This record gives sequence, C-alpha cells and structure tokens, in this order.
Amino acid sequence: MKPVDFLICGEILITHPNDVPIPMGAVAVKGDTVVAAGPLPELAKSFVAERTIKRPFGLILPGLINSHTHAAMTLFRGLADDLPLKTWLEGHIFPAESRLTQKLVALGTELACAEMIRCGTTSFVDMYLFEDAVASVVDRVGLRAWLGEGVFDFPSPAFSSGELAIKETERLMDKWKGHSRITITVDPHTPYTCGAELLRQSQRLAEARDALIIIHLAETEWENLEMRRLCGVSPIRHLDRLGLLGDRLIAIHCVSLSEDDISLLAKRDVRVVHCPESNLKLASGVAPVPEFLEAGITVALGTDGAASNNDLDLMSEMDTAAKLHKGVKRNPTLISASDALSMATVWGAKALHREDLGCLREGYRADLAVVDMNQVHLRPCYNPVSHLVYVARSGDIQDVMVAGHMLMEERSLTTIDEQRLLKDLSGAVRELGLKA
Amino acid sequence: MKPVDFLICGEILITHPNDVPIPMGAVAVKGDTVVAAGPLPELAKSFVAERTIKRPFGLILPGLINSHTHAAMTLFRGLADDLPLKTWLEGHIFPAESRLTQKLVALGTELACAEMIRCGTTSFVDMYLFEDAVASVVDRVGLRAWLGEGVFDFPSPAFSSGELAIKETERLMDKWKGHSRITITVDPHTPYTCGAELLRQSQRLAEARDALIIIHLAETEWENLEMRRLCGVSPIRHLDRLGLLGDRLIAIHCVSLSEDDISLLAKRDVRVVHCPESNLKLASGVAPVPEFLEAGITVALGTDGAASNNDLDLMSEMDTAAKLHKGVKRNPTLISASDALSMATVWGAKALHREDLGCLREGYRADLAVVDMNQVHLRPCYNPVSHLVYVARSGDIQDVMVAGHMLMEERSLTTIDEQRLLKDLSGAVRELGLKA
Repeated sequence: MKPVDFLICGEILITHPNDVPIPMGAVAVKGDTVVAAGPLPELAKSFVAERTIKRPFGLILPGLINSHTHAAMTLFRGLADDLPLKTWLEGHIFPAESRLTQKLVALGTELACAEMIRCGTTSFVDMYLFEDAVASVVDRVGLRAWLGEGVFDFPSPAFSSGELAIKETERLMDKWKGHSRITITVDPHTPYTCGAELLRQSQRLAEARDALIIIHLAETEWENLEMRRLCGVSPIRHLDRLGLLGDRLIAIHCVSLSEDDISLLAKRDVRVVHCPESNLKLASGVAPVPEFLEAGITVALGTDGAASNNDLDLMSEMDTAAKLHKGVKRNPTLISASDALSMATVWGAKALHREDLGCLREGYRADLAVVDMNQVHLRPCYNPVSHLVYVARSGDIQDVMVAGHMLMEERSLTTIDEQRLLKDLSGAVRELGLKA
Repeated sequence: MKPVDFLICGEILITHPNDVPIPMGAVAVKGDTVVAAGPLPELAKSFVAERTIKRPFGLILPGLINSHTHAAMTLFRGLADDLPLKTWLEGHIFPAESRLTQKLVALGTELACAEMIRCGTTSFVDMYLFEDAVASVVDRVGLRAWLGEGVFDFPSPAFSSGELAIKETERLMDKWKGHSRITITVDPHTPYTCGAELLRQSQRLAEARDALIIIHLAETEWENLEMRRLCGVSPIRHLDRLGLLGDRLIAIHCVSLSEDDISLLAKRDVRVVHCPESNLKLASGVAPVPEFLEAGITVALGTDGAASNNDLDLMSEMDTAAKLHKGVKRNPTLISASDALSMATVWGAKALHREDLGCLREGYRADLAVVDMNQVHLRPCYNPVSHLVYVARSGDIQDVMVAGHMLMEERSLTTIDEQRLLKDLSGAVRELGLKA
C-alpha cells in the first residue's frame, strides 16, 4: 500500500473528455501530482491516503482552464451594456480604468479568483495591468495562471509606454521565474494598438525567454478592414510578415478572418482561444470554430473579462460553445459536448504547451473539480459529459483542487475570505468614482 | 396599519423590467395578490405583516414565466445529443416515449417543477401527454401553469387519435375549470403533424371555450419547405387560411419565416415564444426576434423540454436571448437586458393574456423570486437588471413565491420532497428501458 495525500472518491470520474466515464471513480494525489485515477475498488487496493474525500454523488472532472480573461475587470462588471463598442470603451471602460491602481487591480483579481474557483476553474490566462499585483494574488490564493502585462503604443494606467510595459514583462519574468503555478507571458494587446516595432520587440522577448505571446487577433470586422487599409493585408498576414505566427502565439477571438487566414494559422500551429459569449455580447460575430477544428487548429476556451461577458463562468461558456455553432451553421453534429469540454481542458492545456494539465491520468498535475450531481436538474444522467456541458452550472461545483491543494471544499473557499473581499469592494467602487 | 400576510424585504426590488430598481424595496402580499411594492420605509408605515421575510442581500423580481416546455421530458434529459433531428427523434426520443405512462409523466413533471422553482420560474406553459397527470402535479406543488394535451394525426402514447386528444382536452377543460392556477389550452402539435381538419377542430374548440391555442410553428427550414410543397404556402399562411392566426394563438419557435410571414403574425396579433437554446442545439437556426419586436409582435421566452436544451433554466435562457442576436446581427444594441427580462416576465404574461402577471405592482398576482446577491460573482452591481440577465444563475435564486405561497425558502423547496423524487427516478429509468 503506497501512501498518498488524498484519495478523492466520486460517483463518476471523467479522466479525459474522450474517455468513457468511470463509475465509482477515484483520484489518488501525492504532492501536486495525480498518482492514479480509476475505479475506487482498484485504487483502494494500492493506496493508503492521509485524507479521503468522499463525494458519493460527485462527478470528478479535470479542472477547467480559462484561456482568456482580464481578471480585475470584475470591478467593472456590468458597468455598461448593450452599447456600441466605441461608446462602451471610450464612454465607460477607459475613464474608469484610468483610475486603476495596483491595489485596486489586486482586489479585482482576488474577486475574479474567488469567482473562477467557484466555477471549477483551476488555471487562467490573464492580460491586464499591474500584473505583478495579479501574480501576488494568484500566488496567495493557489490558482495556476499565465499572466501578461498589456503592451501597446500609448500610455496605460500602469506604464507610460509600450517599451516600459515590455521592460516590466522582463522584470516579471525574472521575479516569478521558477514559480510552480505562475508563468509570465508577453502580451501585445492587438495588431492595431501595437506598431510593427513593438510587435517585433514582443516576439524577440518571447523567443529569448521561451515564453508564450498572447494577442487579441481578428476580433472584429472593423479590425480586419482597418489592418487591410493600413498594411494592405489581413491582421493574420500582418503578424506573419513580422514573424509572430508560430506555436508560441495564442490568438484570442479570431472572429473575422478568411479561409486563407485559417490555413495560415493552421500551418504555423498558432493556438486560438474562442470566447463565444464576449463575441456575441460585443456584437463581434461568431468565430469559425468548426473550420478551425477541421483545419487541425488547437482551440481553447475563454470567458474574456467580466466587463464584456459579464461573468467568468467557464461552465456556461462551454454550454454556449457547444450550442452556438450548431444553430448558426444549422448542423447539430458540430462541436459536441466532448469538444466543448476539450476546449476547456485538454485543448486549453495544449494551447499553453502544458500537456501535464487538462486531464486526470497518472503523472498529470492534480487540478480537478467536483460537481454535486445530487440535484433535480442533473437527474437522470445518461451521459456525464453531456450533463457537464449542457446542464451543470457553476453553482453545482462543490470542490476544487489545484496542484494538490483544496481551494474549495463543500462550497467553502479555503484561501479567500469572501465576506471581507465584498466589504473591501464598496470602498474600491467609491475610489473608482463609480456608483454601485 | 393594514394587515397583510407577507412583507418581503430585499436590498433591491425590480417591479418591472423598465422601472428603475428600488433600493431597500419590499413587497406586501395579501392572499394571492400584491397589495403594494415599493421602498420598505414607506410600506412599513402602512402594513403590519403576519410574516416578514428579510433578505438584506436579496434582489426581488417578478416570477419568471417559461412560455414553452414539455415538462416530463426531464425523464429524457441528455438521452442523446449532438445528432441530426431525425436520428434524435426516431432513434432515441420516440422509442423512449412509447413506454410513457401517466405515472411516469407525473414523476417527470414533478422533477421539472422542482427544477423550475429552483430557477425562479413561477408559471409555465406545457404541451405533452397525459396532461391530467401534469395538472394534478401542478395543483399539488403550487406552480401556475397552462397545460395542453398534444394533438396530432397519429396515435400518441396517451391517445389513439387526434380526435381523442381533442376530446381529452375538452374533458380537462371541464375538470380543471375555475382552478386559480391551472388553465387548459388547445395544443395542435405542428402544421405538418395535424391535418387541416384537426387544425380547424382545434380552432373551433378554442373559440368555444375562449382558450389559447399553442402550436410549434416554423421551427425549421425543412418545415417551411415541406408546407410550401404540400400546401403551396408557408406554414404561417397555411394557418391563416384555416383561420387560426389571431391573438389566442401562441406560436412556438418561429425560426424559419419570411418578412411577409412576420407582417402577417403582427397584423393578426399572434404571440411568439422564443426558445433560443433549443433552436441552437437542434440546429434549427436563430429566430428573427429583433424583427418581431420591430413589427410589434409580443415575444415570450421558453426553454423547450429538457431533452433538447437540456435544462429548464430560464435564467440562462434570458442570457442567451440577450447575447445571441447582438452577435449574429453584429449589433450590440439589439435585445437589451431589459428586453430579455421582459420576454421572461411581462411579455410572457401578455402572450398568455394575463396582464395581472409578470410584474410586481399593486393588484398583480403575488408571483416572485429572490436572488441572493451576497456572492462574489454578483458584485459590484451597477445595474440590477443587467446582473439578472447576464450574471445571475439559477443557483442564485433563494426564494420563490407563487400566488402568495412560498414554494422555496432559503433554497429549500416546501412542496416537493426532492430526495424521494430522485429515488423514485431510478425505478422510472428502468421502467423506460433506459440506462442512467
């Protein structure tokens, strides 16, 4: 009998979106690693656990990966809705953001982390401002995260130039180097807010440090037309000319692009993040995800920030991703439940070049969530993956583990004091000059 | 000081989707009626309550109206997904349905009622089989419902002909006549499953009894083409020729129709029910809801049954309704949060000719729900209506009242024993020859 730290036992275990779910499944965890995942009777013969977590009605699944957000924008959740993008950004979001400080970003990020843990999210990818403050919060609350300071050719509330944001990125890389859960990325904001030189600098830094590059790309038809006007080519061709297209590039949105663009993304092994709810709400359109998958592109899933979505709920994002393309293309076989779960788990891990994440098998990191299936809306259950995507909601998540640490147990967060956080929030809203 | 039965006090009160939300709002209820709704300090001066329900972080809203479902199909929730409609229906749903009995329909309906109450739903419109059993469940659990026995030109598991289903409808009308919460409707299934004579019979019965007619209409492009082939006109024109278009007709789906059809629906004051998630998942397409509203058509909101959606969650349906049209039409001003809430409340009430439902003002029926806002994903809150539609989830509903009776209090159902129900369900699944 080998000693392990945890034995987590459920009614059903989903080890991978394409694996047959295991009834009476269990996961054995030692340190930050899954030592075994399979039927409980088998595991019980091999392992003796320091702690056994019994969830007789629990569905155990790999922790979800939110591949795109701006965490601290929880501060602006629902500040303005149903408006044209320009009015929304210039009339509401930019003025509010101009008042941001390191402290406010930390608070907004902690709020986001609490929400994401409650949604079964164990990893997230963040592009925003004051990312050092974000990293400190992530370090403390125990999530896994890829963090990048937003880089663009005009002053941000954090830095007076793109150059300085790049310098900050380097500093963050040094400071957080070797952290087991925090990775720093290079985040040029978009092809239209970053000139060619800043994009090349981003690429050089990413290559020098073997880092990922995260960029908003081809989000809108306007961007597509504007880049063609300015550079004579699509945003994707533009990045290719500058040498940015490659497997270290994570392209967010990718709504407005041509067949040629899709082939190029596939050829260069660029990874795409689909944010269906934000694309709908901001009226950008519907990304050609079935075509991406057909072309062999790795597609991950993101919520975007809470100012545009208006939540960080990856459970509902999977539901939307699975339904939207069927309806719009009038083909019910597009984006199966298992595809949607893959986007939020294994494909997200692949996008991040972390193939030790996104599923629950021996040797993978111990990042997982448990859904409470003992509820009227989740029964009967003929197909656990279908239920996860089409029926289960964030409120059904009862436990979350990251790197072998329980961050939520029976719906209580272990590393975040939510009531204190909510109290601090009122002060923050006043500081931002807003009225909640 | 006038005596009332209940004083329900919240942090915020939404009386109507277009009213400014009232901070520290309260609702005074006597019998099944709202006596007053407004700021608590004012109400506290006028009323003394038998019971005061204090929800210091509660958002009080009008109870939601699910204008289209097949409640007992909870039994087939997620039985088969991501399949072409024909395979789904003929290979999975019809064989399972052929085993239905009155007892099984009652069980599936009770499961649906439990789920709907938990989703803040206070009224629902059901079309299915063995509706007498459905009515008995509704009577007992306390929801408000419009119930119709499915009528079509072939044998159903309940009746051997459309004629007999019409006769059953008459019998149900007599049996449930005068019930304060149950109304019987006439439910011809579709224009392609009901011949002209059966449609005329439905219309005659509805006129004779002053009842509503509920029909699935123009759900798919196939239906549109098939009806044109068979009758030479669109399904909508066909119904008009037969005299069915009018304000007593509630047309479900309305996805595939022409501008001419829309004008005709508007001219005849037909009421439309939008079921966006079912339309997406079954790959029917996206209903032209902005065009319906532009034409002055009353649009209500429905989840459809749990076999096709796969839940009865009107909270997420509002979210989808508000985002979908913006994205598909690339116009962020379409279907505001307040429009989506209207579809699920006042416009639903209007569709049902019940203008004493759907908002919380003096003289309206006391049907309401309370959302627990003391949660990280619901703060800050700049706009309560936006939060209700874009952020709040069914799991956030803490209380539900129908006709002055509390059906859920602090997340506990008062009229349904959920654990007993879940236990009975395993037997039902076996009886259906299925494997959960």
